[in-house]
Amino acid sequence: MREIYFLSDFGLADPYAAVVKAVMRQTTPGVMIHDLAHNLPPGDLYRASYILYESVPYLPKQSVVLAVVDPGVGSSRRAVLVVGQRLCYVAPDNGLLTLAYLQDPPQKVYLLENPTYHLPRKSATFHGRDVFGPVAAHLASGVEPSRFGSELPLSELVRLPIYLNFSNQGEILTFDRFGNAITTLLATPAQIRGKTVRIRYHRIPVASHYAEVPVGAALAYVGSAGLLEIAVHLGNAQEQLGLQQGDRVELS
Amino acid sequence: MREIYFLSDFGLADPYAAVVKAVMRQTTPGVMIHDLAHNLPPGDLYRASYILYESVPYLPKQSVVLAVVDPGVGSSRRAVLVVGQRLCYVAPDNGLLTLAYLQDPPQKVYLLENPTYHLPRKSATFHGRDVFGPVAAHLASGVEPSRFGSELPLSELVRLPIYLNFSNQGEILTFDRFGNAITTLLATPAQIRGKTVRIRYHRIPVASHYAEVPVGAALAYVGSAGLLEIAVHLGNAQEQLGLQQGDRVELS
Amino acid sequence: MREIYFLSDFGLADPYAAVVKAVMRQTTPGVMIHDLAHNLPPGDLYRASYILYESVPYLPKQSVVLAVVDPGVGSSRRAVLVVGQRLCYVAPDNGLLTLAYLQDPPQKVYLLENPTYHLPRKSATFHGRDVFGPVAAHLASGVEPSRFGSELPLSELVRLPIYLNFSNQGEILTFDRFGNAITTLLATPAQIRGKTVRIRYHRIPVASHYAEVPVGAALAYVGSAGLLEIAVHLGNAQEQLGLQQGDRVELS
Repeated sequence: MREIYFLSDFGLADPYAAVVKAVMRQTTPGVMIHDLAHNLPPGDLYRASYILYESVPYLPKQSVVLAVVDPGVGSSRRAVLVVGQRLCYVAPDNGLLTLAYLQDPPQKVYLLENPTYHLPRKSATFHGRDVFGPVAAHLASGVEPSRFGSELPLSELVRLPIYLNFSNQGEILTFDRFGNAITTLLATPAQIRGKTVRIRYHRIPVASHYAEVPVGAALAYVGSAGLLEIAVHLGNAQEQLGLQQGDRVELS
Repeated sequence: MREIYFLSDFGLADPYAAVVKAVMRQTTPGVMIHDLAHNLPPGDLYRASYILYESVPYLPKQSVVLAVVDPGVGSSRRAVLVVGQRLCYVAPDNGLLTLAYLQDPPQKVYLLENPTYHLPRKSATFHGRDVFGPVAAHLASGVEPSRFGSELPLSELVRLPIYLNFSNQGEILTFDRFGNAITTLLATPAQIRGKTVRIRYHRIPVASHYAEVPVGAALAYVGSAGLLEIAVHLGNAQEQLGLQQGDRVELS
Repeated sequence: MREIYFLSDFGLADPYAAVVKAVMRQTTPGVMIHDLAHNLPPGDLYRASYILYESVPYLPKQSVVLAVVDPGVGSSRRAVLVVGQRLCYVAPDNGLLTLAYLQDPPQKVYLLENPTYHLPRKSATFHGRDVFGPVAAHLASGVEPSRFGSELPLSELVRLPIYLNFSNQGEILTFDRFGNAITTLLATPAQIRGKTVRIRYHRIPVASHYAEVPVGAALAYVGSAGLLEIAVHLGNAQEQLGLQQGDRVELS
């Protein structure tokens, strides 16, 4: 049986994540469900996309990723099952898988149309419980991907305008809970040694780790997913440097 | 063996939820414990009650619900085991089960008096660890409900003044993390189509899902538990409309 | 196989905790991993230390405690495996185990030097994934502690300046999510009955539980770990009394 890794913006102050899991365990008794993250900012597709970029390489082959950040629930946005090279994804087709596709290229896409694999009564606002969860559980139990609905051309998948690249110009993709800014610049430590990052009116030195600069000072470094990050030593770069998603970043 | 579903306001920044779970696993090796929610606002019995209303129908029959939102810990508030039609509940008798009773009517109530099933030394402020957790674990292992203490008449159970009903006048019961307001009005989509909701100085149209109104606009709809909800499309109704628990809601 | 109890400041809005767990499950298939707490304030070693003080006595013998609150990651701070009398600890040697040592005295310490037990490529900022997690998983699977690196004298372990004692003068160690202040004063209810706590310009009566004082009033009591705590009945002592970590506390 496949394991399920569950990402959502349902938080842990509400019943929603627990209900989806209870439905999945009753759909497929014995299924293993692991939390990926649930507390991301409501509806934040960029944060969701980063979370998948960072985690996908470490998830066991054949796992099912259930990703429910779904501000368009109830509208005509599509619901999809994406078969990647290593993993499968069950999610709204709203772009939140954009960076997962870089780590695990999609091979096939199916629409979640077949009501056999949904709960009998479908609400307008909680497809995590009524559609995505049940589909993920059936998929984990061994149901063939093609059984869930008709195939969609790969080219029709929605993608967010995020462009990761090895260059000198990019932007802030998102932040993590430490207030570290994650940028769209791929980099290796050797390649950026001695350089400076310009962002807003700040000029920030490249370092290899936090303690290389004084407490309270800003630094840039290659983060754990290979992306350039900006942090403040024992501080919060987002707040202290006044940074925002989309801010231009320049390496020189 | 029964499964345990654990609801608390202990959060995930403190050891309390983990300690209760460790105690339960040592009391009953192999017991399955699932998180229902832990991050609700401290002491918020209305939020707890809503969480149970939304989740109880989806929990496996015979499960034990351990619900510890217990601002009166150490006082004379009773500690109870409630046997419902489908599930059992271990909780302080402070009203947090009020809406669970609607989904799963209570059959019997027992007081948690028998110290055999508590930890040997009982603190004044952490009965989750010392009383409720151990009782839930013993119950999960198969101990008969009547062993935990003397029976209490059902009529003596504490209930919060929450009245769910199919009418045109109700109030805001609570909010979820998205800032959606959950009301006490039971409704079906067909019944409220074309109507308007009045709350404070707002007049809010009924819609079937978020994207039916412009981004930033308010809407009312039947939520995933069958209760009328008020939201702002891609926004936070609680903050943006200035709503509070207890606000009067009128459908017309 | 040993169980793993995982403490971190990684939160649940980011992939970090899930990635560490996925790495551990792939290192040691079938390993049981339990969350201790993940949402503590970033880098807060005092909070981490308190969490371990409160939870260590309740964790099953032989468990592995994986504790990753690591603001000095990438610097020359040591990474250690501490063998206690009851449990083992895998952590940065930055003092976060200080209060665990009181509950479970250290017997041996080993440096995490042996790259056999790390991920092949080590980042500069995520040793939870690359070093601590893999070591904890190998340890759980039965690898001998001495295999992870050379022994370090116990006297070289870093300790925070926290002094718990049965006296009349102490300070605020940390806070919990309820805003309760946890102090460094060990006490029994009998010993402090009738006394008064002085902190800043407040004089606070000792009580046995919250409801013994009016709603909104402050009280002091012996908390669930045996430490004197200061709370506000149905309130938040940290905010309402303007308390800070390190504030002097006097019992009289």
